[in-house]
Amino acid sequence: MWAQRELRLEERSRGFHLVTGEVVEALPELGRLAVGLLHVFVRHTSASLTVNENASAAVLNDFGSWFDAAVPEDAPFWTHRSEGPDDMPAHVKSSLLGSAVSLPVANGRLALGAWQGVYLCEHRDAGGPRTLVLTAWGEELGG
Amino acid sequence: MWAQRELRLEERSRGFHLVTGEVVEALPELGRLAVGLLHVFVRHTSASLTVNENASAAVLNDFGSWFDAAVPEDAPFWTHRSEGPDDMPAHVKSSLLGSAVSLPVANGRLALGAWQGVYLCEHRDAGGPRTLVLTAWGEELGG
Amino acid sequence: MWAQRELRLEERSRGFHLVTGEVVEALPELGRLAVGLLHVFVRHTSASLTVNENASAAVLNDFGSWFDAAVPEDAPFWTHRSEGPDDMPAHVKSSLLGSAVSLPVANGRLALGAWQGVYLCEHRDAGGPRTLVLTAWGEELGG
Repeated sequence: MWAQRELRLEERSRGFHLVTGEVVEALPELGRLAVGLLHVFVRHTSASLTVNENASAAVLNDFGSWFDAAVPEDAPFWTHRSEGPDDMPAHVKSSLLGSAVSLPVANGRLALGAWQGVYLCEHRDAGGPRTLVLTAWGEELGG
Repeated sequence: MWAQRELRLEERSRGFHLVTGEVVEALPELGRLAVGLLHVFVRHTSASLTVNENASAAVLNDFGSWFDAAVPEDAPFWTHRSEGPDDMPAHVKSSLLGSAVSLPVANGRLALGAWQGVYLCEHRDAGGPRTLVLTAWGEELGG
Repeated sequence: MWAQRELRLEERSRGFHLVTGEVVEALPELGRLAVGLLHVFVRHTSASLTVNENASAAVLNDFGSWFDAAVPEDAPFWTHRSEGPDDMPAHVKSSLLGSAVSLPVANGRLALGAWQGVYLCEHRDAGGPRTLVLTAWGEELGG
């Protein structure tokens, strides 16, 4: 069984945001998979996806602090500046975290750990809405 | 063909550890795949997985040195401190490396390069045992 | 439907290089997939793959600058020095970016965003040719 759908996420502020609920609701076919995978892909080069702690707003905030410090806007070596000071750091942050996450599915549900969720990582100051491509496949339950 | 299984890894010390052998032994169904994929997922937010050099203990050690320097415990911007000084850096390191690796399978074996192995990256001082979800799928050999 | 093939990339200079065209041309079976995935894996531990901006040479160049600054060859903590000063940083860069990318396929084409491409990230001064393993699978178009 295969299911694939685009999901449009409304614009988020720069930073890290939990989107697990939106992703799961957009693909109800997950509930029919006995065993399978969910692949989540962001179709942009200045936003990314990761899996991390789903409980604390402080964790989301601290992610932003570390990435802003590690990939600073005022680094002397940036030459790609035409799209604003947040653009080139956004590209690097995007590749450090990656454009996709893949998650195991078991018995109709994501087989995540209790504390895991999916983050949309918005690296631009005004990134606008973001489009994800959700793809799930596997063996169907029952029948 | 699909196979999925949880693998419990005994507690490792903080650092980087080769686990290729344990992963392959836990999923003997790999031997039946003519062509396919193996997905390895860690169900925790302070440990991660990566593929890297499988021969030198110095490489494993130097990974630890770089990550400890790049994501320091005493960074002034951490606000999530309730679970200890190693906790928030562990979350960031986990996302930099990622919670999953996916590996091609060919003729019943992982199609890794000669020098590649799978690392469990333990970012906590006392992370305890870690659970992986192994999922393999593909076309069966023979028949 | 499954298709798997090795692709040998000629030696690139140290830095970041777009290889989307080579990858797609090497696996014409992509054109037969109504919905599926393409998995691209690099069989080396000092080169990596990522998805990022496909238009600007300055972006490719700035990636190199950031990674060289973030993972310096002269860091005092490296102990694995036997293969040259660029070797251990290459291993770390490789894991920061990852050894694989997975891309959704829809209607016979990669479902990338308009500005996305696949980078080969060459972290050695003289890395030589690099081998990729391309694996595609999914539901076939038509009949």
